[in-house]
Amino acid sequence: MKSLEDAFGHTLQDIYYAENALTKALPKAADAAKNKDLKAAFRDHLEETRGQIDLLEKVFKSLGMKASGEKCDAIEGLIKETEGLIEEAKGPEALDPALIGAAQAIEHYEIARYGTLREWAKELGHGEAHDLLSTILDQEKAANAKLTALAVSKVNA
Amino acid sequence: MKSLEDAFGHTLQDIYYAENALTKALPKAADAAKNKDLKAAFRDHLEETRGQIDLLEKVFKSLGMKASGEKCDAIEGLIKETEGLIEEAKGPEALDPALIGAAQAIEHYEIARYGTLREWAKELGHGEAHDLLSTILDQEKAANAKLTALAVSKVNA
Repeated sequence: MKSLEDAFGHTLQDIYYAENALTKALPKAADAAKNKDLKAAFRDHLEETRGQIDLLEKVFKSLGMKASGEKCDAIEGLIKETEGLIEEAKGPEALDPALIGAAQAIEHYEIARYGTLREWAKELGHGEAHDLLSTILDQEKAANAKLTALAVSKVNA
Repeated sequence: MKSLEDAFGHTLQDIYYAENALTKALPKAADAAKNKDLKAAFRDHLEETRGQIDLLEKVFKSLGMKASGEKCDAIEGLIKETEGLIEEAKGPEALDPALIGAAQAIEHYEIARYGTLREWAKELGHGEAHDLLSTILDQEKAANAKLTALAVSKVNA
């Protein structure tokens, strides 16, 4: 990595790996959740994540790059934390709020990465990539807001 | 972990571990950064992190708990990602923006966790903990905004 263009490509491969890893982690979270609205939220987000992988493939294509992932230590750690909670939390009073908290940490990770990637795309003059990344960023922000609403209205209490 | 109170205590130990881990990671980021304002931002945030550890110790005390950390896989992964960038990025054009991106991912992780902890403190009627956690949350949001401003004004271009 020598240029901002290199950093952009590298981070794109990181988040592509992360989204693919999440398609394996989200079904486990949906199975573990006790609250039915929370289960549904994880299943909906799994569908959305598959759509985001398609959008990322369009970003790679717009840059003339082959879509590929690079192992992302951050998402590995975040998913490991979530799996640990599923092991440790007994009963819905602890598990469901803890699962939402862990899922929001993952959403925030993605919000940070897409925010950075979008700004770099703008800086580098990659208009199509900028617009696609903005679409995903908005989806992640909405997913996070939905989890907050679910926590406050149905799960914590 | 059976109750929301248990989840709260567990997550507090997680973030206490994370902040302590960051006091070791931030000097490495400050040393690696090429831009002098970015170096200064990492050093300032190290001081702020030490202050946040003190505030967390007050939170533990307000709950009648002994301050202690529990290994947090998420922060381990986030720090490993940052250290990987320091290895891989050659020259300021890639390294400084990549370091800011990684630091913002960490800030977002903290924003997510303090946001969750603060809401749980409110739900559980821990007024003093709520206020202390709100103070730290506001500091993390300000630190993230400062990194965005630095990226846009001085580093990416």
